[in-house]
Amino acid sequence: MSRTAGCCQSCLHYVFDYETPKTLVIQSIVPGCVFRFTQLLVVAYVVGYVCVVQKAYQDTDSVLSTVSTKVKGFASTNTSGMEPRFWDVADYVIPPQGHNTFFVLTNMVVTPRQTQSRCPELPNPSTTCVDDCDCIEGHGDPRGNGIQTGLCVNYSTSVQTCQVLSWCPLEIDTKLPERALLAAAENFTVLIKNSITYPKFNVHRRNILPHINSSYLKKCEFNRATDPHCPIFRLKHIVSEAGEEFQDMAVKGGILGVIIDWSCDLDWWAGKCYPKYSFRRLDNKNPVNNVAPGYNFRFAKYYKTPDGKETRTLIKAYGIRFDIIVFGTAGKFGIVPTIVNLGAALSFLSLVPIVSDWFMLTCTRKRALYSKHKVTYLSEDAETESLSMGTSYGTQ
Amino acid sequence: MSRTAGCCQSCLHYVFDYETPKTLVIQSIVPGCVFRFTQLLVVAYVVGYVCVVQKAYQDTDSVLSTVSTKVKGFASTNTSGMEPRFWDVADYVIPPQGHNTFFVLTNMVVTPRQTQSRCPELPNPSTTCVDDCDCIEGHGDPRGNGIQTGLCVNYSTSVQTCQVLSWCPLEIDTKLPERALLAAAENFTVLIKNSITYPKFNVHRRNILPHINSSYLKKCEFNRATDPHCPIFRLKHIVSEAGEEFQDMAVKGGILGVIIDWSCDLDWWAGKCYPKYSFRRLDNKNPVNNVAPGYNFRFAKYYKTPDGKETRTLIKAYGIRFDIIVFGTAGKFGIVPTIVNLGAALSFLSLVPIVSDWFMLTCTRKRALYSKHKVTYLSEDAETESLSMGTSYGTQ
Amino acid sequence: MSRTAGCCQSCLHYVFDYETPKTLVIQSIVPGCVFRFTQLLVVAYVVGYVCVVQKAYQDTDSVLSTVSTKVKGFASTNTSGMEPRFWDVADYVIPPQGHNTFFVLTNMVVTPRQTQSRCPELPNPSTTCVDDCDCIEGHGDPRGNGIQTGLCVNYSTSVQTCQVLSWCPLEIDTKLPERALLAAAENFTVLIKNSITYPKFNVHRRNILPHINSSYLKKCEFNRATDPHCPIFRLKHIVSEAGEEFQDMAVKGGILGVIIDWSCDLDWWAGKCYPKYSFRRLDNKNPVNNVAPGYNFRFAKYYKTPDGKETRTLIKAYGIRFDIIVFGTAGKFGIVPTIVNLGAALSFLSLVPIVSDWFMLTCTRKRALYSKHKVTYLSEDAETESLSMGTSYGTQ
Repeated sequence: MSRTAGCCQSCLHYVFDYETPKTLVIQSIVPGCVFRFTQLLVVAYVVGYVCVVQKAYQDTDSVLSTVSTKVKGFASTNTSGMEPRFWDVADYVIPPQGHNTFFVLTNMVVTPRQTQSRCPELPNPSTTCVDDCDCIEGHGDPRGNGIQTGLCVNYSTSVQTCQVLSWCPLEIDTKLPERALLAAAENFTVLIKNSITYPKFNVHRRNILPHINSSYLKKCEFNRATDPHCPIFRLKHIVSEAGEEFQDMAVKGGILGVIIDWSCDLDWWAGKCYPKYSFRRLDNKNPVNNVAPGYNFRFAKYYKTPDGKETRTLIKAYGIRFDIIVFGTAGKFGIVPTIVNLGAALSFLSLVPIVSDWFMLTCTRKRALYSKHKVTYLSEDAETESLSMGTSYGTQ
Repeated sequence: MSRTAGCCQSCLHYVFDYETPKTLVIQSIVPGCVFRFTQLLVVAYVVGYVCVVQKAYQDTDSVLSTVSTKVKGFASTNTSGMEPRFWDVADYVIPPQGHNTFFVLTNMVVTPRQTQSRCPELPNPSTTCVDDCDCIEGHGDPRGNGIQTGLCVNYSTSVQTCQVLSWCPLEIDTKLPERALLAAAENFTVLIKNSITYPKFNVHRRNILPHINSSYLKKCEFNRATDPHCPIFRLKHIVSEAGEEFQDMAVKGGILGVIIDWSCDLDWWAGKCYPKYSFRRLDNKNPVNNVAPGYNFRFAKYYKTPDGKETRTLIKAYGIRFDIIVFGTAGKFGIVPTIVNLGAALSFLSLVPIVSDWFMLTCTRKRALYSKHKVTYLSEDAETESLSMGTSYGTQ
Repeated sequence: MSRTAGCCQSCLHYVFDYETPKTLVIQSIVPGCVFRFTQLLVVAYVVGYVCVVQKAYQDTDSVLSTVSTKVKGFASTNTSGMEPRFWDVADYVIPPQGHNTFFVLTNMVVTPRQTQSRCPELPNPSTTCVDDCDCIEGHGDPRGNGIQTGLCVNYSTSVQTCQVLSWCPLEIDTKLPERALLAAAENFTVLIKNSITYPKFNVHRRNILPHINSSYLKKCEFNRATDPHCPIFRLKHIVSEAGEEFQDMAVKGGILGVIIDWSCDLDWWAGKCYPKYSFRRLDNKNPVNNVAPGYNFRFAKYYKTPDGKETRTLIKAYGIRFDIIVFGTAGKFGIVPTIVNLGAALSFLSLVPIVSDWFMLTCTRKRALYSKHKVTYLSEDAETESLSMGTSYGTQ
């Protein structure tokens, strides 16, 4: 036999010899039952928990969403200090269109006919003065409302304050109406149109479900019990579902989340993928540990007087900002997560013989017999094998 | 030998004795081939599908994105009912700047010179009246346009309707131009600047690619075939890529998604991480099963007359809202997913001997011989071992 | 024994016979140590890297966030070409409220008293003309500013340009002030209120931490070293943390990211889930490879003259857009990822005996002895077993 042929043969042996463990079959009911029972536990866990409860065999994808909203309703106000006024959607929704959000004005402090001019500061410890020396020309106190001109002027008959260059007259925002001006806003309705996409699965859905017809949509109103799929919401209903009182919230404003959960299991009949609405107040209404409670912002409408001078109406707008938050994860059977989770479970199955062996060699009556046939001891010192009958210590 | 020393020795035995299965090497080509072939199948699956196709060895991260847009173009309108007018970007992009979104006005119903006053309702079954008794003072019909004053007045020579307090004259939004007023908007262009970050990998990218120079950017226009990386888009092109007709869509408005996919494989040369643009209509154009089709909103421009009275121009704006939706997942080699997926694959490799054993002991010619040497039967009843030659039942 | 009983018994044997590998215990210190050491390596890797460093035992969830902002500060401008003017929040924050974003005006080109009329184009190579033949009636040059009327008129005493129908006078945006008009904006402060939710874990947090009291919030200012949890930021500080100079950025505008990282480990004391702020410039300040550097947009304020004609003030607003980007992943112990990662690690443990066997049968002094007792060779040709003493080739 040549050297090359010998090498080649050895190589073939290496690749194609089949090495298989020698096994001992124990025809006894007790170790067999323990083995099967442990196996069953692992399989039950995998099927029951990992697959059924956690759906670990699914590939997942996050939602992409588009929202448009349309508010409907009108109101009239007739309070002292303001002229009677009629409010429609162009007046109270600011800005007129939003992306995922809309704001409904409910209360306000209006300062009309402001012009760029000089006027006395609102009185407070840092602005009151006795004479011009107390006021520094060009100084803009961060807590004040304008640039000081250096003069000390009468604010009222009893109080003198520094004169400032500002939009005058200054806004006095402490006189916030205690009852919301647009209390009637609670009866406004909003239509929320929401389209979503799961790009990985190429699934598109709308919150106006396919089985809903136009005539239903024209008169329906969302109600968790009776109309859970109607996309038209009464503002009062949204606020009360969030556990708040509309009239309380309307005074100082707030932020309210309209949360649309599109979590879907796309393995089952896909048409069953419905949005679930929930509502939650997102700002902190607790006056402790809070700065600037509620929700407000200032904006102005600019006008020109006939002589070309600019005036503005400053509005400190209080109201409820509705944030439409869309989230969700879609799951669909995927081969990779299935393999990974099945593989991990199989690893646990490979633990089963270790448990069974330990049980067989320690807890059964015939453990000495089993050990004698299963385990061969090879002593360090002896060249000859020694078959001991003692308890084997599982070392794997 | 003392008791302690014995215990200690037993403990050492427990830790350092090495237990290894006894094996039988079968120097036969058939079981060897079956074993290697099954092994090959598993390895091919792991390498081919899990690694190459699904890239399961990668850590992933989601994109964070910032978008700014700049629309260019102007148009003039000259329709009956409105004065000739020139429109530029400050007129037709509302609001002037948006976050991830911009709206281009294409059609409108303008109601100029509205004031807070009284006027007859638009005639419809619930507003027509015969005398004042049909109108309830202070009643605001949700389908109407104002608060009823309780009077029944002439709407036209033939029809009488309830008088309302509202912004008068009322908007008549049924007279929507059938051809979009700003039909020329199809030739406007938009520059979309998009910066993204994958925070986990500290990767930053812009949609203006590094190899593009300023002079190209000044005159290029996006085209899937010739200029796929130009960030300037003609509105008509966006709409037609989405499978829609611009002039149809411009009449009643709609929402169009400009979808930028930043999915990247950061393992390869990172510079190859390019944005992919696609376009899709996001609202439902189907008039069946739809409320408020298209996209519109109302806003007003407020003026003051020389005598200080507030008037407004109400505009019901129809147009196309372009939502820039940025998504993407970056993958990069990660040790944890690699370990997890490799581990799961190894579990499958441990299944291979089970398959091979089953094949060897059931399908080969010499199965009796193999079984005799591999399996030892230990009967329940006998204290002595019995070597049977029958087929072995795999029980693992 | 009947046939059915036999079948039934065989079936019971199949299910309850317990097959266990025969093992050889080698009472030698060297293979034992190698085995334990390899095992230790795998366990150390699993515990150390997968569990402690990568927290692979955790379920994760992405953050849902709501942001509201409130800018404070005022400034006055007194430049040639414009009247002295006082600016407050309603003037420089455009739009007055944003979702996740706010824009602070820092520089501008104002074109007051524009009306719909005719005026000569700004001179450039494509608009200059010699006589009316050079101008095409109704033509709207994309690089121009209006619709040509077909007339060639004097722009100045030396230059003639085509007359256009447009908002006149035309904006000359080349005269941008070199020092930002509202340079004082660097001292404005912004309060950022941010509420987050991890829906999967039902965890809600605010960036105003529970242990912070109102009096602290009224006067604190964010500083990474001294006040890392104060939600009030000075604009100059934000910009300088991002590595930019406020006054440079204010001239041409830009986009600045306020990045709030809410990554949390919810396994530990949950109150320790704090936001981490970082700041980064998001647009490209590099003038090479850039179109429209900086950040600007045009908007207009519309007025009516006493005779009812519409005029507008066009403002090309330059400024800094602050995008508040909230991201984060929360991790919490989850049974499924634990099982999956533990399973994968166990798979590696099952590799340990292969390594140990290879070591024992190739590298130890007594390898021939070990091999003799461990491996039985069954030759293809022989019906009888042959115990060889040669080196074994591991084939599994």
